[in-house]
Amino acid sequence: MTLSSHNLNLPELSAKDTLIGFDPRVSVEGVEEVRIDLGQARSYSILIGEGLLSRDEVWSDLPKARAALIVTNTTVGPLYEEKLRARLQSQYQQVWSLHLPDGEEHKTWESLNLIFDKLLGSGADRKTVLFALGGGVVGDLTGFAAATFMRGVPFVQVPTTLLAQVDSSVGGKTAINHPMGKNMVGAFYQPERVICDLSVLNTLPAPELSAGLAEVIKYGPIADPLFLDWLEQNMDLLMQKDPKALAVCVRRSCEIKAWVVGLDERESGLREILNFGHTFGHAIESGLGFGKWLHGQAVAAGMVMASELSVLLGGVEAPFVSRLKALLAKAHLPTVGPDLPPQTYLEHMRMDKKSVAGDIRFVLLSCVGKAHVRTAPEAEVISVLKQCTSAQALGYAVTP
Amino acid sequence: MTLSSHNLNLPELSAKDTLIGFDPRVSVEGVEEVRIDLGQARSYSILIGEGLLSRDEVWSDLPKARAALIVTNTTVGPLYEEKLRARLQSQYQQVWSLHLPDGEEHKTWESLNLIFDKLLGSGADRKTVLFALGGGVVGDLTGFAAATFMRGVPFVQVPTTLLAQVDSSVGGKTAINHPMGKNMVGAFYQPERVICDLSVLNTLPAPELSAGLAEVIKYGPIADPLFLDWLEQNMDLLMQKDPKALAVCVRRSCEIKAWVVGLDERESGLREILNFGHTFGHAIESGLGFGKWLHGQAVAAGMVMASELSVLLGGVEAPFVSRLKALLAKAHLPTVGPDLPPQTYLEHMRMDKKSVAGDIRFVLLSCVGKAHVRTAPEAEVISVLKQCTSAQALGYAVTP
Repeated sequence: MTLSSHNLNLPELSAKDTLIGFDPRVSVEGVEEVRIDLGQARSYSILIGEGLLSRDEVWSDLPKARAALIVTNTTVGPLYEEKLRARLQSQYQQVWSLHLPDGEEHKTWESLNLIFDKLLGSGADRKTVLFALGGGVVGDLTGFAAATFMRGVPFVQVPTTLLAQVDSSVGGKTAINHPMGKNMVGAFYQPERVICDLSVLNTLPAPELSAGLAEVIKYGPIADPLFLDWLEQNMDLLMQKDPKALAVCVRRSCEIKAWVVGLDERESGLREILNFGHTFGHAIESGLGFGKWLHGQAVAAGMVMASELSVLLGGVEAPFVSRLKALLAKAHLPTVGPDLPPQTYLEHMRMDKKSVAGDIRFVLLSCVGKAHVRTAPEAEVISVLKQCTSAQALGYAVTP
Repeated sequence: MTLSSHNLNLPELSAKDTLIGFDPRVSVEGVEEVRIDLGQARSYSILIGEGLLSRDEVWSDLPKARAALIVTNTTVGPLYEEKLRARLQSQYQQVWSLHLPDGEEHKTWESLNLIFDKLLGSGADRKTVLFALGGGVVGDLTGFAAATFMRGVPFVQVPTTLLAQVDSSVGGKTAINHPMGKNMVGAFYQPERVICDLSVLNTLPAPELSAGLAEVIKYGPIADPLFLDWLEQNMDLLMQKDPKALAVCVRRSCEIKAWVVGLDERESGLREILNFGHTFGHAIESGLGFGKWLHGQAVAAGMVMASELSVLLGGVEAPFVSRLKALLAKAHLPTVGPDLPPQTYLEHMRMDKKSVAGDIRFVLLSCVGKAHVRTAPEAEVISVLKQCTSAQALGYAVTP
């Protein structure tokens, strides 16, 4: 279950660097804790459980300050802001809030500046704590605002989508998009805590649940075959938002992410494997225009492409692709990408942050549970693109 | 000459933490080196000397990459870009350049985005090296762009103003201004190297030379009485741009800054003393509108205010203020601020990044060579403002 370090040119991992085993049980107390271990100053906990927005104990010992700002969006704010405010009002003299427009197309300078305007207009100082209440867009914007406001203030992630709970809120990657590429401007900046209340997933729309499951499914092929087996057996329960199944899936995803981030916080090697499906996926997102497909939808089609490319280049075997497609389909996720011209895909992939000197780097599978990063001949990439795209796929667009 | 740690609630400094003694001589080889010691990964050298833009040896061992971007402005670019390009073309396959508009009023999101547009439009990747060729505005913008482009790329400071050579290019503070306050959005992000070519100061306009001398003078009162004596004796030579005097003054300023930054990189205590004169100074800059006064001019008037406040509150003695004013006047710097209403000053000072919970924190002098940080009663601050401002001072404005 450990990663081959050979392909990544990393030193051999020691025993303590191996991923802890998968345990498909949930704790009796109902609050799971996963630690992100980054040394004394920057380690933190991910707390996972039902109804955490109403449980005082997970909100104690927050950073001390006079004021806090809740950053949320116009969809999530009306549902959960008051609950969060109730937890914070006993700890901060002032609790401000800001509702940003919802959607990936708003992960921009303009939204970021709304946060700075709000902070400065309210009289924030260097100790003011930011709370990101929302999905990946809110988390990335708020985290980047926290990283840069007065050169750094503390922040707490309160992710309200499955995707944010299993991936984007954990690990300290913050960013905004640039018209020429996704997440092109940002910072590595760790939150003080991540609080995943599973109950908020009850209001999550079905396409968003599916999008989150794409990032969950990702962890199997790159790191954990047993978790992949479990997902196949439990996908129906997850699609029905079964609380225990969700608890297992969020905790295991966070465990895998915590393990990778603990070994390579700033993506100088191992962490790149978390981008499985993302090289193709980002090209879909930028190629169509941000917000047309959900990030998770693009990653789903991207994982199929990356798997087909792995097969072509002598990695994982062909039956795995069928298996992956079946699992994605069960999660109501696309298994083909939109039929943009291959050159459009290539152009956008050359802009990917992993690219160096114009060479596109792909996260490919050696076998189920092992990923590596490499370049690929253009002919093979084009062949995969032709095979894995379809005019029909445009039907997945989330905006009319 | 060491700092009293008592006022700052810092642990007592050990012998190795004391500032090295002032030596008013320059090296025979003509290249002075000052080390910023921040541990293995982030330590770097400041190289100081005449004609460094023409000396290959200070440009060797730069970070490896396919491409480099020179960021400069419309004033400095025409004078020195070609010289820098000649040094870089042997090391990078592609050397791009970008000329930003000149002036503090352009230290904005808009200018920052011009850097990102240029990088992405040119096909930059995660290894692309940024070179900041210019004064404090170019250095702060380029450093912040380097801190955030693809979550961090390497950068080199090539400061072309005295202010940037002695202060802003050293220590890793990068930022842009917000309409509501100076340097409100930024990051701590260290350069790979700082290369101070003293010869470029030959083309520096007189008001810019004076502005740089304000930050030089700052180092005496907060840390080094002997350097203050030397400045009094050598101010005429400095105003004539005497090369040896400039070399001593740039090196000593960098030594003091390196010492402070090495002890407190992220301004959690000691580093605040470098803001002597800046609380009042930033209020002058924001109060008048960025770009009306040069930063150094505002700091000069601000140091007089901070000194008067120190006297009022029982710190440094009154004759020191006359001494400081005489030295500033010799450097053609203002010793009074513009007569904005005291409440305008107070409002802008409450927005200062050092302020916590609305309390303004001032860097004050206990005696010559010792600074501390404290709050002050509003009545005393207003009394100082009345004493140290004048309608006449508006005449220092650099724009018509």
